Amino acid sequence: MKLVSYNGGRLGVLLPHGVIEITDLCRLPIDFWPPVGMTSIIADFPRYLEEISRRILESVPLPVEQIRLEAPLAYPGNIVAFPANFESHRGEMKSPYSASSRGFFLKATSSIVGPEDVIMLPNIPLREIHHECEFGIVIGRECRGVSRENAMTHVFGYCCLVDVTVRGTEERVMRKSYDSFTPIGPWIVTADEVKNPHAMALELSVNHELRQDANTRDLIVDIPGMISMASSVMTLRPGDIIASGTPAGVGPLRAGDFVRIAVEGVGSMSLKVEQSKIGMNDAFAAGNIVKGRNGDAI
Amino acid sequence: MKLVSYNGGRLGVLLPHGVIEITDLCRLPIDFWPPVGMTSIIADFPRYLEEISRRILESVPLPVEQIRLEAPLAYPGNIVAFPANFESHRGEMKSPYSASSRGFFLKATSSIVGPEDVIMLPNIPLREIHHECEFGIVIGRECRGVSRENAMTHVFGYCCLVDVTVRGTEERVMRKSYDSFTPIGPWIVTADEVKNPHAMALELSVNHELRQDANTRDLIVDIPGMISMASSVMTLRPGDIIASGTPAGVGPLRAGDFVRIAVEGVGSMSLKVEQSKIGMNDAFAAGNIVKGRNGDAI
Repeated sequence: MKLVSYNGGRLGVLLPHGVIEITDLCRLPIDFWPPVGMTSIIADFPRYLEEISRRILESVPLPVEQIRLEAPLAYPGNIVAFPANFESHRGEMKSPYSASSRGFFLKATSSIVGPEDVIMLPNIPLREIHHECEFGIVIGRECRGVSRENAMTHVFGYCCLVDVTVRGTEERVMRKSYDSFTPIGPWIVTADEVKNPHAMALELSVNHELRQDANTRDLIVDIPGMISMASSVMTLRPGDIIASGTPAGVGPLRAGDFVRIAVEGVGSMSLKVEQSKIGMNDAFAAGNIVKGRNGDAI
Repeated sequence: MKLVSYNGGRLGVLLPHGVIEITDLCRLPIDFWPPVGMTSIIADFPRYLEEISRRILESVPLPVEQIRLEAPLAYPGNIVAFPANFESHRGEMKSPYSASSRGFFLKATSSIVGPEDVIMLPNIPLREIHHECEFGIVIGRECRGVSRENAMTHVFGYCCLVDVTVRGTEERVMRKSYDSFTPIGPWIVTADEVKNPHAMALELSVNHELRQDANTRDLIVDIPGMISMASSVMTLRPGDIIASGTPAGVGPLRAGDFVRIAVEGVGSMSLKVEQSKIGMNDAFAAGNIVKGRNGDAI
């Protein structure tokens, strides 16, 4: 099943010929803030399955042409991100460590945008801003201290995820947390529809030129490993997103670029890149003072 | 006004003689998950003020003895944290950088607990787990690219915040994101009740011994600076929490300890420290391999 958000916060199931709306299942007014409808539906998903099946059989879907897709999760509890999680990317970044030795960090949940949104480059002259091709693991059931063996039972689904990053020496979390720096989508595919998540091809192209091309079988910390490691530290909750880390081939984005990401068995999405006026700011103006002193380039 | 969460997710205003309930204002069922009621009320607070005032005048409060306080914000969008933000702590940690040059990081929102909860030490033998005395700034209005001059108008209120940290060389964000590592409370004091947030005393004691004693006038990046810097990168949203960074005096916590934090004009809270069995895990077992290679001790 493909779960989507569309047309101003509506929630639905995407079928080949259109969308069946399920917004009302979460019991929230359409304009409720914060936008946790999908998080709530994921948390109680088994309970809604019968009703969703009924609607798929009986409802008339809204045609695809009338739909503008949005980020399928607008307000997750956490985005857990694994750095240096492909050997090929460790190599190109000359990183002395990997996800297996250093663990994970977080991205701001406010950095999420959807498949029809725009990646806005902050105005930070002289800095490279890179694309990182990743996939997102969406957690389905609350868990803490999960073993590798049980980890996969906590996966709700998967999505494409681009991890956009300003290179530099400031806190990596900050450099990865600009608004629009975590495009996710185009939908969440439920885990039952992904044949083998341990051997999914990922690729990212910029202006139709292939830049990143990898497979989840080459992850240093694999999917059960990421869930086990993260849950050994923190409670993973329904709707939390784990970002996989990126393979080799990261590179600069420029205004006018067109980024396409595809994850096998999940889907693909294409986003425009534009220049923002915001961002020539305290954070990076000050950061330049210590440039190069304490490198942290991943 | 002091806003509280209590007795299983109820929301209220704390008066000297008890609590006036305002749970229903957020239009959520009491058992709704995720628990975003307070976030929602903060986002629309001016709209609720008249009704809250009416209830304070007309309702019979629930006596304090019948109340168990919980974390006043259970599911914020982000916890933005400023490292090395007091010169005294930079000195004791021998940090080559400060918040002004490196910016901020994040803590997992799942690490939040309330004033009557327990700090659970993960089972990581040979690691020190430190208390850091901080205060939390709660954002009231969505903002991006805010100037220092306008920053304070976006503050909803303040709370005490203990930033608990495993020392080591793994990702700092992970080391600070264990469940129970961000006690906040005992309530959110609205900004209008804090006379001068730029000169608030903070102190933390362990087993009645004063360990940390500082004042917000000694912040390297002050409150308007933190809001301006964070909002230059990301949209700050109602209910987001900014953690101030800690002054000198951090030190180890042990099972059986009793931690008290007090912030002038805000309040104080005391938490027990207990030992958890979870945590001797992949993350830190692997982390030990590179211990000391790439120090990141803040």
